[in-house]
Amino acid sequence: MFKATINNDTYLSLLETRHAKELFQLIDSSRESIREWLEFPDLTHQVEDTDAFIRRSLKRFSENDGYWAGIWYRNKLAGSIGFLYMDWKNKKTEIGYWLGKEYEGLGLATSSCKLFINHAFEELGLHKVQIGVAANNLKSRAIPDRLKFTNEGVIRHYELLHGAYLDRVVYGLLKEEWEPENESQAFI
Amino acid sequence: MFKATINNDTYLSLLETRHAKELFQLIDSSRESIREWLEFPDLTHQVEDTDAFIRRSLKRFSENDGYWAGIWYRNKLAGSIGFLYMDWKNKKTEIGYWLGKEYEGLGLATSSCKLFINHAFEELGLHKVQIGVAANNLKSRAIPDRLKFTNEGVIRHYELLHGAYLDRVVYGLLKEEWEPENESQAFI
Amino acid sequence: MFKATINNDTYLSLLETRHAKELFQLIDSSRESIREWLEFPDLTHQVEDTDAFIRRSLKRFSENDGYWAGIWYRNKLAGSIGFLYMDWKNKKTEIGYWLGKEYEGLGLATSSCKLFINHAFEELGLHKVQIGVAANNLKSRAIPDRLKFTNEGVIRHYELLHGAYLDRVVYGLLKEEWEPENESQAFI
Amino acid sequence: MFKATINNDTYLSLLETRHAKELFQLIDSSRESIREWLEFPDLTHQVEDTDAFIRRSLKRFSENDGYWAGIWYRNKLAGSIGFLYMDWKNKKTEIGYWLGKEYEGLGLATSSCKLFINHAFEELGLHKVQIGVAANNLKSRAIPDRLKFTNEGVIRHYELLHGAYLDRVVYGLLKEEWEPENESQAFI
Amino acid sequence: MFKATINNDTYLSLLETRHAKELFQLIDSSRESIREWLEFPDLTHQVEDTDAFIRRSLKRFSENDGYWAGIWYRNKLAGSIGFLYMDWKNKKTEIGYWLGKEYEGLGLATSSCKLFINHAFEELGLHKVQIGVAANNLKSRAIPDRLKFTNEGVIRHYELLHGAYLDRVVYGLLKEEWEPENESQAFI
Amino acid sequence: MFKATINNDTYLSLLETRHAKELFQLIDSSRESIREWLEFPDLTHQVEDTDAFIRRSLKRFSENDGYWAGIWYRNKLAGSIGFLYMDWKNKKTEIGYWLGKEYEGLGLATSSCKLFINHAFEELGLHKVQIGVAANNLKSRAIPDRLKFTNEGVIRHYELLHGAYLDRVVYGLLKEEWEPENESQAFI
Repeated sequence: MFKATINNDTYLSLLETRHAKELFQLIDSSRESIREWLEFPDLTHQVEDTDAFIRRSLKRFSENDGYWAGIWYRNKLAGSIGFLYMDWKNKKTEIGYWLGKEYEGLGLATSSCKLFINHAFEELGLHKVQIGVAANNLKSRAIPDRLKFTNEGVIRHYELLHGAYLDRVVYGLLKEEWEPENESQAFI
Repeated sequence: MFKATINNDTYLSLLETRHAKELFQLIDSSRESIREWLEFPDLTHQVEDTDAFIRRSLKRFSENDGYWAGIWYRNKLAGSIGFLYMDWKNKKTEIGYWLGKEYEGLGLATSSCKLFINHAFEELGLHKVQIGVAANNLKSRAIPDRLKFTNEGVIRHYELLHGAYLDRVVYGLLKEEWEPENESQAFI
Repeated sequence: MFKATINNDTYLSLLETRHAKELFQLIDSSRESIREWLEFPDLTHQVEDTDAFIRRSLKRFSENDGYWAGIWYRNKLAGSIGFLYMDWKNKKTEIGYWLGKEYEGLGLATSSCKLFINHAFEELGLHKVQIGVAANNLKSRAIPDRLKFTNEGVIRHYELLHGAYLDRVVYGLLKEEWEPENESQAFI
Repeated sequence: MFKATINNDTYLSLLETRHAKELFQLIDSSRESIREWLEFPDLTHQVEDTDAFIRRSLKRFSENDGYWAGIWYRNKLAGSIGFLYMDWKNKKTEIGYWLGKEYEGLGLATSSCKLFINHAFEELGLHKVQIGVAANNLKSRAIPDRLKFTNEGVIRHYELLHGAYLDRVVYGLLKEEWEPENESQAFI
Repeated sequence: MFKATINNDTYLSLLETRHAKELFQLIDSSRESIREWLEFPDLTHQVEDTDAFIRRSLKRFSENDGYWAGIWYRNKLAGSIGFLYMDWKNKKTEIGYWLGKEYEGLGLATSSCKLFINHAFEELGLHKVQIGVAANNLKSRAIPDRLKFTNEGVIRHYELLHGAYLDRVVYGLLKEEWEPENESQAFI
Repeated sequence: MFKATINNDTYLSLLETRHAKELFQLIDSSRESIREWLEFPDLTHQVEDTDAFIRRSLKRFSENDGYWAGIWYRNKLAGSIGFLYMDWKNKKTEIGYWLGKEYEGLGLATSSCKLFINHAFEELGLHKVQIGVAANNLKSRAIPDRLKFTNEGVIRHYELLHGAYLDRVVYGLLKEEWEPENESQAFI
């Protein structure tokens, strides 16, 4: 019922447990592409797993500590974007996102990020937004690059994925650096 | 960020803790009219109280057991509407609502109820929606009457308010009885 | 050890976990008659289930929010009666009850209800007692009828039992309407 | 409502929160005599304290780990007796008791203990009952002596009360040592 | 990393979860000798069980209510010694201990007890240390005897082990009775 | 009782609640120097605050998720060092430390870090240790520099301290980069 509209084709909505099945199917159909850089497909074996994930996300939301939203494209769940945590004391947050294989290349992640960034700066009163990406995940790095985030460092061996250590680029954007385009203002 | 749009002037949005101050001010400015039939103004002394209320509501939401949304009219919080509980086993719920004194008479409660009813039947898959109103609260009873709910009984001495026992009318609407108007379909 | 005596043959006592086995056997032997109107036999597969039920009931008791007692007839567990909740704020409660098939027709439910009603009005200081019964459960409706409860309404499609929606009659008795018989006074 | 009857004047009943005021008044009126050997009067300043005590006792009861009952004499609360814990694994428990000053000398503690001992051995299936008493508390030691408990040891400096260390006599009674009198059998 | 050194061969260290495997192997290799007087080998079937035991012990430690330490001898886990509880109000505690079969006779339990007793009296400010031993466990009783504890009583049928009731000797040592030897002072 | 010895003058020991007073006094006597870069002195008003801090630290320890140890120099508490978290999945941790004003310049932080690093790599089996320091805190940055950590990035506006945003240098050390000196090996 509650939506954040991006354009006629696309909207975001909080993930609720009634979306567990659709979320499972999306992950299940894109296991290979997603698990290249993220771990959760390997932990997602059945609808109960996405249901539990959504419950954890809603619990965070109820504690004012971030949440995951679904990205719907032409009324199909296409991916997900979330605030990973809310550091109210230091006025910053971090955004994460992923798309199903067949929804790549449509600009969904970029436009969803814009909405989240605007919301963080304009409605939540935050001061900084971070994005962390595996150093070799060039597709995903293109998004903070395009949105003019600053590359603040490469944390070596940040995580162990499928038996190998991955470095992580930390991108940051300060409120004063954010230049919402005219059209993006529309969807605040 | 996430909204359910009713018309150009009006939208609903989940109450989040960042709305605590605005919610307190609305209640504080309409104490007399609200407390005639509801108890919560007498329990609402400061912003901490509305903040705690919103946290309880979000906790229910995270447990898939109902929630309260704000009704915004011309970008001001005008009232609130909620699903009091979710009885998934028996596929029913109950809607509650109230408005600030100056926002009465604009049709906000009725149009918000329509949105909630559509959501309950179409998106949540429920079978029945109930509304309970104090028997003497004629203004509030007008809404389920207008929406063609059935008066299913008058529960005597249902609650003790300001020292007097109030009877309560239980209204019910089954899914097959709901006739969404054309325009209301639009805002599913 | 702690009992409420009804007559030489009959007493009530809080259900404790040591009664779990006897309770399971009673339910198991009357599955067909009980499940016609109540759901719990279908959820009761082994002694662990009645043990868990009793623990939940004792937890409610410890939180001052109702409990279930056993009805013993000639030293055999014959059925159960409970306060489903305690609405201290509004000074009301609701009584539920059921009997094993072979203990029907002995007046056990009626006399147990009398004891509970007296206790609610005289010792607990409540103002109203409710009883809810499925509209077609004529045997069970006979009890509030006999005790001069008022039929306050028929809530349509109140519950979904074995795939069908059941209506529910809400019966209410106010303190000033209660006329304990002489003999019933004796067992306050 | 639920009682264990000792004789026409005396019965035991689980302490419930509705007894908090009467319990506070009893303790308050016997502070001096009770605190000579027990600590709780010094921790009992207002009705909220006895209410909290009763809630803790009911929580233990709901967890099958002992409880406190009131001793009523001529319809006045005269004292309290409890199972301090339930050691189901080793089939033993410990009984504690105290009386208001004006109810001493009536045999209430002894007769209440008999009831508790019978219940422990006959209904709960325990194998041993213990009673612990401060070594210098001769009045209280008379009870296990009279009931033919065995003095199993004197634990030195068992507790620190009002700044002095008290020794504690551990009394024990095995099931095979218990000889219920004819009349006591009656109140099983 | 954190150790209490007894001598060149022996030290104590808090049991942490990384020791779960070594603890399991020690218990597993001495099942027969340990279970003669203690129950836990029969409850220890796999590493998960010792891991859970260690977590419970660390939780007690974090609540300032006792803990278990490992006894390492020549860099092998040889046994365990613990404070079973901390009775801060009455300034007393109880020590428990056990050794693997092949580490008996080396004085490990006695010297570990000395360290614990010194710690209890000198660093924790306690007033009494107790040790409880099954009456027939002569090997274990030799330790409090050697350390000049007083036999304060024999609690009959204290526990049910492998189907038989065991009596328990309660040993106590008051602070003023403790005479640390010169060498033991060294390892405070 | 349990200690990690650095040299004749210095040892580390888990902070326990019995150290709360000494910890409070250390912080209280160095408020000005510590609060220049860290926030906790402003949150530490009385012994109850350090007691609560220690309890939280012990709870983390019991959950295998890091802890704080005291640094004792000539039997006085001189500072503190801790594992801020344990990322077992990715085999890394982060070390934090601070000293009282009068204990600066003695090499205590560096030698304590060495002990923690050795413990992390040798006993805990971790793969990476991180240290995060405010970019302008040159004294503190000297330690990871001296220990040959790599500066992996400067996270801008990482925290808000006393009204100003501080940048943070993230230092990292991989296991294969660690060269324990001969003497440091001794205190594994």
